[in-house]
Amino acid sequence: MAGYDWISFTTDYGLSDGFVAACHGVIARITPAVRVIDVTHQVPPADVSRGAAVLAQTVPYLPAAVHVAVVDPGVGTARRGLAIEAAQGLLVGPDNGLLPPAADALGGIRRAVALDNAEWFADPVSPTFHGRDIFAPVAARLAAGGDLADAGTDIDPATLVRLPEPIVMVGDGWLEAEVSTVDRFGNVQLAAPGETLDRLGELLRISGVSARRVVTFGEATPGALVVYVDSADRVAIAINGGRAVVALGVAPGDLVHITTA
Amino acid sequence: MAGYDWISFTTDYGLSDGFVAACHGVIARITPAVRVIDVTHQVPPADVSRGAAVLAQTVPYLPAAVHVAVVDPGVGTARRGLAIEAAQGLLVGPDNGLLPPAADALGGIRRAVALDNAEWFADPVSPTFHGRDIFAPVAARLAAGGDLADAGTDIDPATLVRLPEPIVMVGDGWLEAEVSTVDRFGNVQLAAPGETLDRLGELLRISGVSARRVVTFGEATPGALVVYVDSADRVAIAINGGRAVVALGVAPGDLVHITTA
Amino acid sequence: MAGYDWISFTTDYGLSDGFVAACHGVIARITPAVRVIDVTHQVPPADVSRGAAVLAQTVPYLPAAVHVAVVDPGVGTARRGLAIEAAQGLLVGPDNGLLPPAADALGGIRRAVALDNAEWFADPVSPTFHGRDIFAPVAARLAAGGDLADAGTDIDPATLVRLPEPIVMVGDGWLEAEVSTVDRFGNVQLAAPGETLDRLGELLRISGVSARRVVTFGEATPGALVVYVDSADRVAIAINGGRAVVALGVAPGDLVHITTA
Repeated sequence: MAGYDWISFTTDYGLSDGFVAACHGVIARITPAVRVIDVTHQVPPADVSRGAAVLAQTVPYLPAAVHVAVVDPGVGTARRGLAIEAAQGLLVGPDNGLLPPAADALGGIRRAVALDNAEWFADPVSPTFHGRDIFAPVAARLAAGGDLADAGTDIDPATLVRLPEPIVMVGDGWLEAEVSTVDRFGNVQLAAPGETLDRLGELLRISGVSARRVVTFGEATPGALVVYVDSADRVAIAINGGRAVVALGVAPGDLVHITTA
Repeated sequence: MAGYDWISFTTDYGLSDGFVAACHGVIARITPAVRVIDVTHQVPPADVSRGAAVLAQTVPYLPAAVHVAVVDPGVGTARRGLAIEAAQGLLVGPDNGLLPPAADALGGIRRAVALDNAEWFADPVSPTFHGRDIFAPVAARLAAGGDLADAGTDIDPATLVRLPEPIVMVGDGWLEAEVSTVDRFGNVQLAAPGETLDRLGELLRISGVSARRVVTFGEATPGALVVYVDSADRVAIAINGGRAVVALGVAPGDLVHITTA
Repeated sequence: MAGYDWISFTTDYGLSDGFVAACHGVIARITPAVRVIDVTHQVPPADVSRGAAVLAQTVPYLPAAVHVAVVDPGVGTARRGLAIEAAQGLLVGPDNGLLPPAADALGGIRRAVALDNAEWFADPVSPTFHGRDIFAPVAARLAAGGDLADAGTDIDPATLVRLPEPIVMVGDGWLEAEVSTVDRFGNVQLAAPGETLDRLGELLRISGVSARRVVTFGEATPGALVVYVDSADRVAIAINGGRAVVALGVAPGDLVHITTA
């Protein structure tokens, strides 16, 4: 097999410990020519849903790669480790819902394997650090051209753990959707696809507050609430020069209701 | 054209979202051999002045590169996108004052182009993420050897937006200057060049508090306020083992007055 | 000499300033083919002990490298700069206790040199930024194949500054040890090696609170305190789904007492 020149790496390890570097080191020792793109390591600890969202929204812009992701509160328990072949790339990580949205964004799952070939792991495997001892070495071997069949046993993709679909409801002149993520700028991204906004007008209300549909926040009056289609093609809410998340008082998972004014 | 082996990358995107990685990915897809040095992605949101300062103080130490910087509260509005040719490197980013200080640090602006060649952009361009869809791809194409003339239309460098010059006033036995930045150690950097300290003595006063001029903070009494010339050749204030920013109660943009004691 | 393909880099510089990037730039200018693995730059300011611990626990997983580490409250004073040859790699940084634990983890110190060859430094050297002007250029030259003998003058390894050994005491049915580090998940790592746990039972008490010995936190009741051997082979305390550091109210350097229940 040809392998991959790139590995992407997403975790909740943070940047204060040496965890991320240890995984980079493991990869470098196995396949030094491969280069690593860090997606983020600031997923809130154990927040699988947030990890899944950021990975799925980023992979379409990455080069062909093995995408390793580790947000893994069940590390060391019976939860399976996975390698997934998607139409445009491979994914490696725990079977807890983290990988499937990214696999979908990469053209859908073609094949899945439960990682059970211990020859590809570190020896011994730490029961609390599968990122370093299982997922990074497996990803490195796949990037180096190793065969998916050698990573483990084929499993039915239908058996993979999937996160619940986020709530998105649309009617005439209204839209109700779960908050997916809040970015560094305090912009609130909803789970609703951008096109759902087309059923609402330009003048809107969010929880009783007036808002306006715009193309970009810079065109709005400073301090005003605006609704727009963001760079991941989701409905999002911002305040030009402010933090919408504070004004709305919401968090990921909360429902937001937008109506035509 | 020869192009560049390196791209440097400076933003206010933070490291918690996938924004930085998406830009790395865009660059890797266009020009995989180029390597990226991240200057910082922790510029406070929309703080163009801070972004300009950190970039200008860092570029002299980087290899020959295309320097992409995106702190861009006006993204998607009529503000221009720029590529600047400096004596020692290229710069790409929004026309809001972010780039010129770095261009000056790289030997001055030789030529500037308004980015208007949509063939070099992603298609479509997100109105809220020009970093990913315009600046990263333009930088990648320039690094790959693309011609500046193909990036857009020549503009008069005199028309570039520039930030106001920071206040620096020096007299006999006194110095008044704006706070430029506060670093991770709480050290307070003023806009005043290091040489301005030569007109003051060794024993100083800052806002009524005694301070001493030193070469490095480690030589001072723990807890004492010291004034020194920092590694970017600016006048700076520190406390050995403490945080000068807390003791002085200042923030970027504030004026600090230092007198001979 | 053959040199090294990799440099690892550990500091307390943080990621908000351009300090780390300036050092990357200095390395890239001297030896562009070498690649840098960032261990962490979030060591708390001036916390030499924390820097030493994270470096020592990470280097065993990195490829053969020159490991540069800079946590350096004495920068610019008489403290020596060092290059150390360990059995498996080189280390560069200040002589303040930061490097020896990592050198031990790399097979022990074979040779040490006081950096005094100014031809290998930047000119001039900033008295407050030896990372950029001394340690990074020295590391780059060593990685490029420069001879250790050219970096400075041989010194007796016994004269290197070493941090005090952390307190670890073990008796029949009890264990008392200093807290080494607290990771991003709030897990509390003690200085005690994993094997010391073998003298205690499965049911334990920590400061009067019940705890259980486990292999991995995921197998514990949510909210329960557990004791395990962590991925660096140290005794550690966690709460499944919680933050042990908060429950225990401890910080690095504090003593923790574990007894058989």
